[in-house]
Amino acid sequence: MWPVSRSAVVAVADSPWRRCTGGVTAAKGFQAGGISAGLKVSGRPDLAVVVAPEQAVCAGCFTTSCVRAACVDLCSERLQQTAGHARAVLINSGQANACTGDRGLVDSLRITRVLADQLGCSEELVLICSTGVIGVPIPMPNLLAGMQPLLADFTEDGGDRAAAAILTTDLVDKQIALEAQLGDRTVRIGGMAKGSGMIHPDMATMLAFLTCDAAVEPALWQSMVRRAVSRSFNAITVDGDTSTNDTVLAFAAGEPLAEPDHAQLELGLTQAMQELACAIARDGEGATCLIEVRVEGAVDEASALQIARTICGSSLVKTAVHGRDPNWGRIVAAAGRSGVRFNPEDVALWIGEHQLMASGQPLPFDRQAASDVLRGKDVLIRLKLMEGSAEARAWGCDLSDQYVRINADYTT
Amino acid sequence: MWPVSRSAVVAVADSPWRRCTGGVTAAKGFQAGGISAGLKVSGRPDLAVVVAPEQAVCAGCFTTSCVRAACVDLCSERLQQTAGHARAVLINSGQANACTGDRGLVDSLRITRVLADQLGCSEELVLICSTGVIGVPIPMPNLLAGMQPLLADFTEDGGDRAAAAILTTDLVDKQIALEAQLGDRTVRIGGMAKGSGMIHPDMATMLAFLTCDAAVEPALWQSMVRRAVSRSFNAITVDGDTSTNDTVLAFAAGEPLAEPDHAQLELGLTQAMQELACAIARDGEGATCLIEVRVEGAVDEASALQIARTICGSSLVKTAVHGRDPNWGRIVAAAGRSGVRFNPEDVALWIGEHQLMASGQPLPFDRQAASDVLRGKDVLIRLKLMEGSAEARAWGCDLSDQYVRINADYTT
Repeated sequence: MWPVSRSAVVAVADSPWRRCTGGVTAAKGFQAGGISAGLKVSGRPDLAVVVAPEQAVCAGCFTTSCVRAACVDLCSERLQQTAGHARAVLINSGQANACTGDRGLVDSLRITRVLADQLGCSEELVLICSTGVIGVPIPMPNLLAGMQPLLADFTEDGGDRAAAAILTTDLVDKQIALEAQLGDRTVRIGGMAKGSGMIHPDMATMLAFLTCDAAVEPALWQSMVRRAVSRSFNAITVDGDTSTNDTVLAFAAGEPLAEPDHAQLELGLTQAMQELACAIARDGEGATCLIEVRVEGAVDEASALQIARTICGSSLVKTAVHGRDPNWGRIVAAAGRSGVRFNPEDVALWIGEHQLMASGQPLPFDRQAASDVLRGKDVLIRLKLMEGSAEARAWGCDLSDQYVRINADYTT
Repeated sequence: MWPVSRSAVVAVADSPWRRCTGGVTAAKGFQAGGISAGLKVSGRPDLAVVVAPEQAVCAGCFTTSCVRAACVDLCSERLQQTAGHARAVLINSGQANACTGDRGLVDSLRITRVLADQLGCSEELVLICSTGVIGVPIPMPNLLAGMQPLLADFTEDGGDRAAAAILTTDLVDKQIALEAQLGDRTVRIGGMAKGSGMIHPDMATMLAFLTCDAAVEPALWQSMVRRAVSRSFNAITVDGDTSTNDTVLAFAAGEPLAEPDHAQLELGLTQAMQELACAIARDGEGATCLIEVRVEGAVDEASALQIARTICGSSLVKTAVHGRDPNWGRIVAAAGRSGVRFNPEDVALWIGEHQLMASGQPLPFDRQAASDVLRGKDVLIRLKLMEGSAEARAWGCDLSDQYVRINADYTT
């Protein structure tokens, strides 16, 4: 029998990390703020800033699309110029500032210059992320007029305001704060994210910002962040579309951490990112549940992840879950087309705690009980192969009529 | 200005091929039939047969999924055993006979044995294709009882009956017949197909059967069929899901064709397959229009096809078209994540005859007029790069609330 956790969201045994209050400003020394600058027609908050302590290390992961917004290029270049350091990031929501031609870069440069002047740091240390409609320039007069109130009010408890100001079609804000006793000190990791459509492995219209109040050497921090992203933000899918603007920025600043504690720090970073990633999948456009797919017995983690992501991304699996229909055939069909070879005669499959297949063949099962599992807020699908011992998890959501309505009517 | 054809469906200049009446039995010497054997609960036709002349050459293309139905394995093995020859194929709809364990193969073998006995040919020359729900065995008593009426009535004008009996969720049957004067003779190509969900490049829950009344040597026929499939059935997508049962079988039998006419024959075969492929995309589950994406100026045909297929498969593009929303940002975003690198600053984009982008930047355009284009039955999207001179086309359909309802409620 398979041990089912209460929630599909990761519960790591023996982890020293516990939830604490706060979001991106939970980590000591970080400040944030958010206001309404009139970038969104709705008048909702649309301009946020996160300010790190001086000397902060920063690692970034960006969209793999070759059509990228100017702000993504700017972030990527500046992190190279500064060898992985940054002081602040400004986030505007409403306009993605992608496919806006030369103007996109000009506007991004101008905004970061204003912020750098206010903070009294060099421009290279200031980053910018944009999210919203593609092809529409940022209304610069509104944004520039908003800089003064924004920069007059960023604080050490401003995480909530920032988390609200980065949202677009999101229904809820997404924040996380974890703390752990590492050696003789308390370390905190904070974070916030946005995204609910155009979400797919290799990032999404998805922005995420993490903070950590322990210092880590830039190259090491970058490698920790990359691995954690691959096990979190790159393991979720809402609709298979990768955005022009996807960005994860993770800051670390404070007392250096002893080397023996690095593994624990990476664990905490991974947990924080997985919580945010699941929050995005759960808030997927039109979604009514979170789907977690666990693949076990694969040759390596990459193969397991590829199968898990393919199942999570299958329109037929997503619609079956939405219809509360334990249609296991679609799940194995999706696994079969994932590009990873395996022996179909070894496949075992569970939905929740109900085993539907063994040795590649269907088992008799209680269809009503299995359908009831699919009525939960968290749906667990587990596929077991016999190719090796590697495993991976991916997260997604169901596909509803509501998703179609939201996306058929977005700009009109 | 871009010359817009009346229909998105391929019109090849200077092609000698013209539509003629009939379907899979349009080619001389081929016979077909179809009946209701009680495999479908609905009582609709569900058992079909196509019988080729003796000595017929047959080429097959099969699903790339590693989870394949027993009948797919059987077809593939038998075509190898016979060096590319086959006499007949039986098609049952209602049950895919995939993930049915050892029983799947036992049943397939038994069915083909009955048909071989009736035709008086060796078992290796008889093929079988199944389509329908995965994991459900074929009701063998019904099927076997249906063999006698089926085999008592297959005729040279039975294409219509066969085309009706292979359908599952299809709303309409899909048939094609083309004829051309090649040298001093008339050559005919006939075909039929089924499929409207689980449709994606590299095949789909899609079956297609082509016939040709000119003989071609098996290896050459196989290579012609492969190329034609890559430009037709492998260039359509409905929902991104590849099936366990996808099969294309193409028969050729008759007087040998002179070598100079081989290129024309391949052209006809490609046109016939493209017509059937577009018919499948147009009949996509919940679809209200056919989307054709043309990508030009790519380095090679494979790159162009990859971009075209990614755009056709994007949920965001598909929902935008459904919402009659000329959201060009989603189109270039999909191109950008296709995995093919290109310079985004060279991109030009048209919807219908309305140019929306030039040199990677949006142009002012008449939003209402562009939206009106999306109200048509055929929507043309054209993306032009500056990387090379290769081009390709892909076809898909819009994504509607109706798609979700059809697939959320399929087995329950």
